[in-house]
Amino acid sequence: MNRIYLDHAASSPMMPEVIRVVTEAMELYSGNPSSIHTEGRTARAKIEDARKKIARIFNASIGEIFFTSGGTEANNTAIKCAVRDLGVKQIISTAIEHHAVLHSIEAMRREYDIRTDLLAVDAWGRFELGDLETLLQQASAPILVSLMHGNNEIGNINPIRQIGELCEQYGAYFHTDAVQTAGHHGLNLQEIKAHFIAASAHKFNGPKGAGILFIRQGVPVRPLLDGGGQERNMRAGTEATHQILGMAYALELAMNTLARRQAHHADIKQYFKEEILKMDAGIHINGDPEKSLDHVLSLSFPPGPKSDLLLLQLDIAGVSASGGSACTSGAEQESHVLNAIGHPPERKTIRFSFSHSNTRDEIDRVISLLRTWYSP
Amino acid sequence: MNRIYLDHAASSPMMPEVIRVVTEAMELYSGNPSSIHTEGRTARAKIEDARKKIARIFNASIGEIFFTSGGTEANNTAIKCAVRDLGVKQIISTAIEHHAVLHSIEAMRREYDIRTDLLAVDAWGRFELGDLETLLQQASAPILVSLMHGNNEIGNINPIRQIGELCEQYGAYFHTDAVQTAGHHGLNLQEIKAHFIAASAHKFNGPKGAGILFIRQGVPVRPLLDGGGQERNMRAGTEATHQILGMAYALELAMNTLARRQAHHADIKQYFKEEILKMDAGIHINGDPEKSLDHVLSLSFPPGPKSDLLLLQLDIAGVSASGGSACTSGAEQESHVLNAIGHPPERKTIRFSFSHSNTRDEIDRVISLLRTWYSP
Repeated sequence: MNRIYLDHAASSPMMPEVIRVVTEAMELYSGNPSSIHTEGRTARAKIEDARKKIARIFNASIGEIFFTSGGTEANNTAIKCAVRDLGVKQIISTAIEHHAVLHSIEAMRREYDIRTDLLAVDAWGRFELGDLETLLQQASAPILVSLMHGNNEIGNINPIRQIGELCEQYGAYFHTDAVQTAGHHGLNLQEIKAHFIAASAHKFNGPKGAGILFIRQGVPVRPLLDGGGQERNMRAGTEATHQILGMAYALELAMNTLARRQAHHADIKQYFKEEILKMDAGIHINGDPEKSLDHVLSLSFPPGPKSDLLLLQLDIAGVSASGGSACTSGAEQESHVLNAIGHPPERKTIRFSFSHSNTRDEIDRVISLLRTWYSP
Repeated sequence: MNRIYLDHAASSPMMPEVIRVVTEAMELYSGNPSSIHTEGRTARAKIEDARKKIARIFNASIGEIFFTSGGTEANNTAIKCAVRDLGVKQIISTAIEHHAVLHSIEAMRREYDIRTDLLAVDAWGRFELGDLETLLQQASAPILVSLMHGNNEIGNINPIRQIGELCEQYGAYFHTDAVQTAGHHGLNLQEIKAHFIAASAHKFNGPKGAGILFIRQGVPVRPLLDGGGQERNMRAGTEATHQILGMAYALELAMNTLARRQAHHADIKQYFKEEILKMDAGIHINGDPEKSLDHVLSLSFPPGPKSDLLLLQLDIAGVSASGGSACTSGAEQESHVLNAIGHPPERKTIRFSFSHSNTRDEIDRVISLLRTWYSP
């Protein structure tokens, strides 16, 4: 029987047509995009075409789109360059951001004399906009607000439009880690007042090792990676043409089928939730019950020997899911996100995350497995 | 007629078998390598297998090999983390390093109170080991010596073994940018006493956007990119499995055919040089006449209208070469390397660089073009 892959928030497989685009680019566009000969100019034209497509999707200008090696580099660049180049002396964030954000903030605190404030989150992972506003009101020095769009572990969606407006009102810089929402939501950067946005290709069926950093026009940051004059002197290093083309193609594909995919994710998630609740086995749903990613469902299982080995048992039964996020699961640490929302450590959380390719039948198979283990 | 590509030092096309490895990895190893389910563990095993291969090639241990997004990130990490984490207060380098090195040093000088010394180079781009030793003798604080292995513009090869020994003798850290030599030379890191070495896949027919950073065991640096615990907490970000596998395969292929390739490069270069000298048209050879990369030939053309448009004329005639390096050519700046060796600005330099796929026939065609333009 085919395996059931329900870990798309960790990495979502590339579609065959995206793989084809990447392969074709490796074959045809081999020149260094900075070379001025035919092979170089051909690669350059393809990259700029990809940039144009991506800029259009985000309603940004091409001068605001920078290619990086992934979401991590994009988040690092935004946070570190804001502190280094924009005179930021205070960062406001939460304890449930991705480690690419939290550890970047931590690194900046070690190196620079900055203050960090983590907004309190409740048991559902939600913070109060009022708390953010209070901190912004009290501020005397330049501030960076770094609040993710969609949470990778529990799926919460933050109101980035309102956050952006608050930041604008109080003159703060706003960075949002949109790794879980780019390609899954419309992101109109004329309406979202962010200065920095980070995205990652392999979360929307593009290649691993490719990301996007949006930097709003006029924000005077210098590169994190120094060297050649690539990316208009903002990101040194020979552009990985095939990666960029694959990412742009995958993003276009995702946006062209957005409504259909969203509806499908929502249907799968709703069905999964209903079946879980029907089981009446003490399985809870983590995260904000109201505003949440359609493709992420985080379930909290009751204590016991079945739960301790649940992820392994699922894997053996052919179901791939995640405990916490992939980025921390390798280390088998307790999730910092679950800690922050006060998830009881004796319960076990499994994150299921979906793509357009998952089916209700697959969910049925997972439910029937869970039923054998958890039904009274 | 087929185009003649003589810009392999800028980027060398991937061989079909390398493209196949990358494509297959995109198809088969789609899991996040940090995920603990089957798809994740499969990807992880492939990556660690690649690391093992690469470590063996460099005679390093697997714990010393880190995957990066390219040579630029590898060089940035080495230099910036050495200054930040190793207490380095002085950097010794030359003015003819790649910008990934020089601009990283510059960035560190802006941020930290460090001293930089650039060793004088002569008209052939050579420096004196005695000058290096004098500086090392005078030093009182921790030093980083950053001297490239092979120069990308004029092809000079530095005696990195002797440099490493001097550094060891005086307790200095040694970083070498081996982007132009990895895959082209044997690099035995038991014999070369470097603490950091940077390499880039697309210079040895691997994918763009993939690089290697060697960090010698026990050198206590922290990551440049913070986030997840990937690469044993030294480089955050989901590993680009397909890129890493393609890089390892390309490097293996290069090393398995090293002697043959080197002989072929040397033959092509020798033939090219002889034919140029036969022309007796005032065309000079840049760089060290004795120790030089077999795959790089930098030619200096006499002043005049023919030379001003030479690169363009070659391109129109179907020959791809480079003025300076690709990383600077986009900006059409005067090359900092040629400036440093006192190359007369009224002369025009073209860099021709070769791969195993180039032929003497191709050189004949280039020579015959040059003859029509330059023969008296």
